[in-house]
Amino acid sequence: MKAIKVIEPFKVEIVDVPKPKIEKPNDVIVRVTSGGICGSDIGIWNGTNSLATYPRLIGHEFGGIVESVGSAVKGIRPGDQVAVDPVISCGQCYACRIGRHNVCRDLEVMGVHRDGGFAEYVKAPAENIHLFHKKFDESLLGLVEPFTIGVEINNRAQIGKGDKVLVMGSGPIGICAMQVAKRNGAQVIMTDLVKERLEKAKSMGADETVLVSEENLEERLDRFTDGEGIPVVVDTVCVPSSFEQAVNLACPAGRVVCLGLKDKPSSICMAEITKKELTIVGSRLNNHCFDEVIEGFEDGSLHPEELMTKAYNYKEIMDALDMIKEHPQDVLKIVLKFED
Amino acid sequence: MKAIKVIEPFKVEIVDVPKPKIEKPNDVIVRVTSGGICGSDIGIWNGTNSLATYPRLIGHEFGGIVESVGSAVKGIRPGDQVAVDPVISCGQCYACRIGRHNVCRDLEVMGVHRDGGFAEYVKAPAENIHLFHKKFDESLLGLVEPFTIGVEINNRAQIGKGDKVLVMGSGPIGICAMQVAKRNGAQVIMTDLVKERLEKAKSMGADETVLVSEENLEERLDRFTDGEGIPVVVDTVCVPSSFEQAVNLACPAGRVVCLGLKDKPSSICMAEITKKELTIVGSRLNNHCFDEVIEGFEDGSLHPEELMTKAYNYKEIMDALDMIKEHPQDVLKIVLKFED
Repeated sequence: MKAIKVIEPFKVEIVDVPKPKIEKPNDVIVRVTSGGICGSDIGIWNGTNSLATYPRLIGHEFGGIVESVGSAVKGIRPGDQVAVDPVISCGQCYACRIGRHNVCRDLEVMGVHRDGGFAEYVKAPAENIHLFHKKFDESLLGLVEPFTIGVEINNRAQIGKGDKVLVMGSGPIGICAMQVAKRNGAQVIMTDLVKERLEKAKSMGADETVLVSEENLEERLDRFTDGEGIPVVVDTVCVPSSFEQAVNLACPAGRVVCLGLKDKPSSICMAEITKKELTIVGSRLNNHCFDEVIEGFEDGSLHPEELMTKAYNYKEIMDALDMIKEHPQDVLKIVLKFED
Repeated sequence: MKAIKVIEPFKVEIVDVPKPKIEKPNDVIVRVTSGGICGSDIGIWNGTNSLATYPRLIGHEFGGIVESVGSAVKGIRPGDQVAVDPVISCGQCYACRIGRHNVCRDLEVMGVHRDGGFAEYVKAPAENIHLFHKKFDESLLGLVEPFTIGVEINNRAQIGKGDKVLVMGSGPIGICAMQVAKRNGAQVIMTDLVKERLEKAKSMGADETVLVSEENLEERLDRFTDGEGIPVVVDTVCVPSSFEQAVNLACPAGRVVCLGLKDKPSSICMAEITKKELTIVGSRLNNHCFDEVIEGFEDGSLHPEELMTKAYNYKEIMDALDMIKEHPQDVLKIVLKFED
C-alpha cells in the first residue's frame, strides 16, 4: 500500500509499505479515507518537532472505513465509518492509573512516536477506534482529532453553561476550542492579529472578536464581562508573553489553559496566582474525547466542514505542505483524501 | 473592652474600645478566648502587608465562647464554643456566584481589611461562626483558622487517599497542610533547611523529611515515589525559585499549589505545564473549611496542641511579637490568651 513517509527533515516521499495485518485479537484495520495536516506534522517535516524520530509514517488526524477486525473485537464491523484516536498509553503508570492516559509516562502518539495514519490502511487497537452512528462525509472523518483538542481544553478548564471565555488566537486550535465551548453553552470572545481570521472565527460561532493590533483588549473584555473580568482564558498563541498576559487577564477564581510546547520561559508572579486563586492547566492531546466530538459532528454543533480550508489527494502532499508554508494565514485545516 | 491595635507600623497598643453590640438580626457576639499570631499579622505590625490599612484592630485567627446572638440566629447559643471564620464576602460577584467566596471581588478579612479578633469581644455574622460539638481546650479555639489554610490547599490540589505529596517548607502552613493531607489518607514528604523543624514535622506526622541543605531532593523523591515522580507539590517556601522548582518536580498529571504573595516573578516554561498537563492552583485563605477542621480537632486527627509553641496573655503582645521576631525558626504558632 501507499503511505506518506518523512525520511528526514524536508524529505517527504510516497512509499510502498506492506499493508497491515490483523495480528492481535483486538486489532482493527481501517481503510483511511481522510487525514488532517497539523502544525506538529509540519514540525516533523521541517525538523522542529523535538518529539519525532525519523523515518516516520506521519499522520495523527485520520479516519476511514473499517476493513477487518480481530477475533476479540466487539461492536466494530467492516464497513463502519470511524475516527482513530492516535493516543496509545501503558495503562500502568501514575497518569494512566488516575485516568489521565494522554500524559502516560510511555505515551506513544501514532504519527509521531510510532507510524501514523497518512496511509491507505492503518492498524490500531479496538479501544482507539470510535464509531460514527450515521453516514458522514468521508473526507471529514479525519477531522475528529483536532476537535478533541478543543474538548480537552474545555474539560481541563471546566468550561460550562454561562461561562465567558477568551480564546487568544484564531487558528485551528482556537476555532475548535471555541466551537466546543459554544456547544457547552459558553460565550466566547476571540483575538487575532489578522482581520480575515477573525471574520472566519465570527462566522464559525465566536460571539465577539478583537483585532488586538487595533483594539484595546482589556477594554473589550471589560464590556464583554460587565466589568467582572474574564474567568477563562485559553492561550493558543503560545508565546512567552501570551501566557503572561493570560495569567494577568484572568479574574479571581479564573482558569487559564496553557497549550504551548516552547521551552522559552514566561515571567509569572506567584502573587497573581495566589491572590486570584487561579487554576492554570496544561492541555495536551486528548483524554478519551473522540465520542464527544463525533456526537457534536452528528448533532450539527461542531462544524468540520467549516474547518476544512481545502482538500488534496494524498499524492499531492507536497502541494499541501507548500500551501500551508506559503499561506499560513489563509489555512485552517488542509485535508488529505486517500483515494485513487 | 480591651483590644490589640496596630496604630501604625511598629506601634502596637492595648486600647480601650466600645464592646460590640448586636445590631443586625444575624449578629453574634463572641467572647474571645484565644487567638493565633500569623505571619500576616507580623506583616501588619512591621508595615510589609500591602493589603492592610491603619489603624487596625488585628487578629484573624480567633475563637471563643458565644456571648449573645441576634434575633434571627438559629442553632448558636450563648455558652457555645466556637471558631470564627474571618472571611467576609459579597455573595454577588463572579467568584461568589461560583462558590469561591474567598476570592470575592470585595473580599474583607477580619483583622486585615476590617477590625479583627484580638479583643475581649468580637462581632461576626452567624454564617462565620462555627460550633465545636464537645468541650475543647479554650486556648486552642483560635487555631482552627491556620488549619483551614491546610484544608484549602488540600481541596485545591484534590489531595486524597494514596496520593504522594511533597510539602516544601515545614513552617506552620506546611505543617497544617501536611496534617490535613495525612487525614485525607495521603503520604507526605516535607523539606526544610532547619533540622529541628524537620524533626518537629516528623513528630507531627510527616512520613519522610528531607534536609535540602544536605540531601538531594530529587533522589529522595525518586525513592519516595518508586521512580514515578511526585504528583502533588505544595510550595510553602514561596520564593521565585521554589515555585519554579515545584513546577519542574511535579510528575505528569501532577498538581502544584502556589501560596506566595510576592510580586517577584518566577521563570516558568509553558512546555513544562503542557507536556505534563499540570494543574497549578493558587490557594488563598479558606473557602468554608472551618467545619472540616473542627471535625479533625474533635476526632483527634488534627493536632492544634502540637502547633502551639507557646501561649502569652494578650497583654504581653509585645513579648509575643519579640519572640517571633527573634526566634523565627523555633516558632510554629504563638497563641494569645484573652483572660485577665
